[in-house]
Amino acid sequence: MTSRPETPLLDTVDTPEDLRKLDAGQLRQLSDELRAEMIDAVGSTGGHLGSGLGVVELTVAIHYVFNTPEDRLVWDVGHQAYPHKIITGRRDRIRTLRQGGGLSGFTKRSESEYDPFGAAHSSTSISAALGFAVANKLNDKPGRGIAVIGDGALSAGMAYEAMNNAEQAGNRLIVILNDNDMSIAPPVGGLSAYLARMVSSSEYLGLRSLASKVARKISRRVYHGLEKAEEYARGMATGGTLFEELGFYYVGPIDGHNLDHLLPVLENVRDSELGPILVHVVTQKGKGYAPAENSADKYHGVQKFDVITGEQKKSAGGPPAYQNVFGETLAKLAETDSRICAITAAMPSGTGVDKFAKAHPERAFDVGIAEQHAVTFAAGLAAQGMRPFCAIYSTFLQRAFDQVVHDVAIQNLPVRFAIDRAGLVGADGATHAGSFDVTYLATLPNMVVMAPSDEAELVHMTYTAAEYDNGPIAFRYPRGGGIGVELPETPQKLEIGKGRVVREGSKVAILSLGTRLAEALKAADQLEAKGLSTTVADLRFAKPLDTALIRKLMTTHEVVVTVEEAAIGGLGAHVLTLASDEGLLDAGLKIRTMRLPDLFQDHEDPTKQYDEAGLNAPHIVEMVLSALRHNSAGVEEARA
Amino acid sequence: MTSRPETPLLDTVDTPEDLRKLDAGQLRQLSDELRAEMIDAVGSTGGHLGSGLGVVELTVAIHYVFNTPEDRLVWDVGHQAYPHKIITGRRDRIRTLRQGGGLSGFTKRSESEYDPFGAAHSSTSISAALGFAVANKLNDKPGRGIAVIGDGALSAGMAYEAMNNAEQAGNRLIVILNDNDMSIAPPVGGLSAYLARMVSSSEYLGLRSLASKVARKISRRVYHGLEKAEEYARGMATGGTLFEELGFYYVGPIDGHNLDHLLPVLENVRDSELGPILVHVVTQKGKGYAPAENSADKYHGVQKFDVITGEQKKSAGGPPAYQNVFGETLAKLAETDSRICAITAAMPSGTGVDKFAKAHPERAFDVGIAEQHAVTFAAGLAAQGMRPFCAIYSTFLQRAFDQVVHDVAIQNLPVRFAIDRAGLVGADGATHAGSFDVTYLATLPNMVVMAPSDEAELVHMTYTAAEYDNGPIAFRYPRGGGIGVELPETPQKLEIGKGRVVREGSKVAILSLGTRLAEALKAADQLEAKGLSTTVADLRFAKPLDTALIRKLMTTHEVVVTVEEAAIGGLGAHVLTLASDEGLLDAGLKIRTMRLPDLFQDHEDPTKQYDEAGLNAPHIVEMVLSALRHNSAGVEEARA
Repeated sequence: MTSRPETPLLDTVDTPEDLRKLDAGQLRQLSDELRAEMIDAVGSTGGHLGSGLGVVELTVAIHYVFNTPEDRLVWDVGHQAYPHKIITGRRDRIRTLRQGGGLSGFTKRSESEYDPFGAAHSSTSISAALGFAVANKLNDKPGRGIAVIGDGALSAGMAYEAMNNAEQAGNRLIVILNDNDMSIAPPVGGLSAYLARMVSSSEYLGLRSLASKVARKISRRVYHGLEKAEEYARGMATGGTLFEELGFYYVGPIDGHNLDHLLPVLENVRDSELGPILVHVVTQKGKGYAPAENSADKYHGVQKFDVITGEQKKSAGGPPAYQNVFGETLAKLAETDSRICAITAAMPSGTGVDKFAKAHPERAFDVGIAEQHAVTFAAGLAAQGMRPFCAIYSTFLQRAFDQVVHDVAIQNLPVRFAIDRAGLVGADGATHAGSFDVTYLATLPNMVVMAPSDEAELVHMTYTAAEYDNGPIAFRYPRGGGIGVELPETPQKLEIGKGRVVREGSKVAILSLGTRLAEALKAADQLEAKGLSTTVADLRFAKPLDTALIRKLMTTHEVVVTVEEAAIGGLGAHVLTLASDEGLLDAGLKIRTMRLPDLFQDHEDPTKQYDEAGLNAPHIVEMVLSALRHNSAGVEEARA
Repeated sequence: MTSRPETPLLDTVDTPEDLRKLDAGQLRQLSDELRAEMIDAVGSTGGHLGSGLGVVELTVAIHYVFNTPEDRLVWDVGHQAYPHKIITGRRDRIRTLRQGGGLSGFTKRSESEYDPFGAAHSSTSISAALGFAVANKLNDKPGRGIAVIGDGALSAGMAYEAMNNAEQAGNRLIVILNDNDMSIAPPVGGLSAYLARMVSSSEYLGLRSLASKVARKISRRVYHGLEKAEEYARGMATGGTLFEELGFYYVGPIDGHNLDHLLPVLENVRDSELGPILVHVVTQKGKGYAPAENSADKYHGVQKFDVITGEQKKSAGGPPAYQNVFGETLAKLAETDSRICAITAAMPSGTGVDKFAKAHPERAFDVGIAEQHAVTFAAGLAAQGMRPFCAIYSTFLQRAFDQVVHDVAIQNLPVRFAIDRAGLVGADGATHAGSFDVTYLATLPNMVVMAPSDEAELVHMTYTAAEYDNGPIAFRYPRGGGIGVELPETPQKLEIGKGRVVREGSKVAILSLGTRLAEALKAADQLEAKGLSTTVADLRFAKPLDTALIRKLMTTHEVVVTVEEAAIGGLGAHVLTLASDEGLLDAGLKIRTMRLPDLFQDHEDPTKQYDEAGLNAPHIVEMVLSALRHNSAGVEEARA
């Protein structure tokens, strides 16, 4: 343990109110102390580091200039909000970040009044800030909406939708573009190139000229209206026409680490009667911490994996992560199949698409944070005969649900969905849990939904998906490492809609989907020890169900339990529906479905999360025993 | 019956190949005949008229200049594609549009090789066209991707996501912006204002200068690179900087009804080695048909309602449409509750929000085609103490699923979802069916999901939602008119999670959600006539379920049937899950769930659609009888 950094000034600042009592001249020191405190804290807890380091000065400046929490500050994504948490009353808990019972790694309404809107998925901040601004305007109450959004997040359509609607908020809305030319991976696309041109072609303006220019710009429209020539003249001077075309007053670019620039500009913006205003601030991710500065990309992801979950210690001998098994399998398949493509939405390494891209760069597409486009682009590729794999986390695929329905499923196009982070995800908590995909995909006609029970199965399913040209097919698998089984030399093409019996028994049948299989097998051992002969089936498919196998197990076993890492409406619901459709329940069947509970689970070690969820081996055993107990009393009496 | 128009030239054109044999000088006449044919056809079938009339010349010009179907032409939304259908081999069926067994009102892959990508939801075309372009590029095959997209559709984020990714396609991608300053309703937002400024401030360029300018522009970048000053100089000349910043070559604006302008420009674009290119074409919705020209807005919607469904004839005495009951109820509630707001995504009249907006303009928000923003904006309003109602069609709410999960449900914010067009929708077919909302909403923790069984219930549910501040709440109701019950003077606040027994019986229990209740009651009459005493419950809530009522009915009735206008994973699945959780199936229960079938149903009269779906009274009767028959033989034997 090293001793904590000296932070005499920061020690006097518990809330922004304290901060606002300081002289502006003290804020440099405060920022330095805040940065040191944050590095120390994250050093002990792990978490997101680079993003927070990049906005230390911006955090201080915003809280100094604006009247938070009345002014509603919304941090996009929220993983850059650690400095914000430290100076908004949460410093005493900052070393509990992302740990069970501790602070969230994102902003969270229940944590603080200074977090008016939780975030964790990208690009929501402008819409939310606009909501705050408009509500206050309607009620004639003070309070602006302030969104701080990264350049990477601007690639998502919803940010654009919000900007397109921003004008109504007038000076109630301020968007601060935190441009570090970096989201998790380097950003892509036309907008990114545009921002880079703006920054590279502009001098950072000096204090006096910048502040006066802001004031002048903002007043000019009042007197001279919106003549086109002038619009473009301003565009030429500042480079901000894209935002101005959408109705914003554009100010920037500004050095986001220079408080002498930030403070007067934000003060001018605060005092402006016109708006909405977009302030373009340029920052450096990982600023002030050499290892982070030198590898900003890695400090985002590795830190993310470096906590709680247990998988982070990528020791040489450990089982490979599911994402890499997928990426490497796909890369290998693509060697002999030129139709295979891979698409990621700004998550090349998180999805394993980086492995594919290394081998087949021309067939790998990182579309930026743009899941909607990713899916429909894949549909277009499929319609032209390619075999596209959309590799998107379960929680982020929610962003493209309509595209999955409308562009893929209705047209029955063979888009392959490689869905990582299915089930509970540990430190990232509820916002990143992949709880709903089985439900929202299996309800769709034409869709095939698979889940591998281990990394070898993932190899087979990747291959099966590649070879399946009849329509859309999805396979979902968890965050982290596999269970250590040997990877098959030759992938096997699975029969669609067929499960496998992993263990034969006669009294109890456990129907498992996905990686709960290991817990199901443990449970079977324990049941066997109690004299209860137990069958375990790995169903492999949530849709289409293996109706023959399920029917057989239901008619030959006394208790049937389904187990899945998914919310209500998934495997269990489909099995029950099949059973009732076929009248298999008419004469009585002790059937139970084990699934994720009907609540949003907080961040916690995944094993503990599954304990909370009641989906580990002891819970399966108890569910079976309880069903058997129910026999003699319960229902019969109730029905009498 | 009037006689059909004389169309001697059109009679020689069955496919674009025929078209391309004509002299350019004949295309004016062809366009006129095509317009006349389209008016005549839609006059006899109903359908979308204004949009198609606006693109007659554009349709002719595109097929004349480009090599369809090898060049992949994607019509955004697709409801403007009637002229396209007429000249791509479907003229003989054009008078079957939107009718059962007839042509779809949208583009559809199964109809023609000239429809490479089906559309019906807005803003998908650029992503799809990019997929085609990239696939051909990868395979070194000829064929461009051509997207024709309206200005209204550009307000959706996914169009922007696609544009942001377009640069990689080079000259393989052409986007034709069909700017008629109109989608279904007048478009809103910054982009719309931007386009209006561009058009109003530009002269339409003469033929020669335009064509040569295109050629000059396109070659200039090659020689002079991308210097900023020049970029802006071009921006000033053409007004297209927004698109150029995203990586497009911008050409326009061009008069979309003037073939002498369209043809040479499109030829230049076709022959360009650079791209992607955005061609800004200005058209007039309803062009060439006076009643449409004079009321373009209404010709979109009224025509849409004027076919198949039976609701279209809004005779004075008929029951009001659900959307209007909702809109008027909400407007009334807002008179005494200043917190109530209403949000629509470009569907003010379709959702009834127009009624609200008329009474409370400052609290009505039309955000454009931007469902994602709509939901998170509403979440922001709710977080600041307002009572927002998001009025979005079931099928379009799919666009905002992640926002419902991440911004609303996880934060447990009281956003109200007024979900119109739930269930099957008739002429609009599979793409517009509201099949999945019960499933994708009821799987979410914190969410309340209601469905009114008639328009009076909708009044109660609107009020109940307004008064419910504990978290998100949704209510879903069908397209079209109510059943004619009297509307309550005073809305009633329903108890959350409580259903009602509409009819008491003892042997059979029908649990209904939504407007199938009328069929359930009919079925009960028929069952009663067969001596089967039948209970009918209107559950009102899919979530939370009325567990006490359901438990009671299950333990006192021999057969239990659920009925809903929703796909698998909805009410039936939740009822089955409850029953198995509680062991109510252990001793046997004849339980069946009736739901939408696992397929995408084509457009058809709604009653017929529900016949196909097996959800009318005779099907309910047969389901009960079949369950009773199953008693003696089936399962028992199978289990032995």
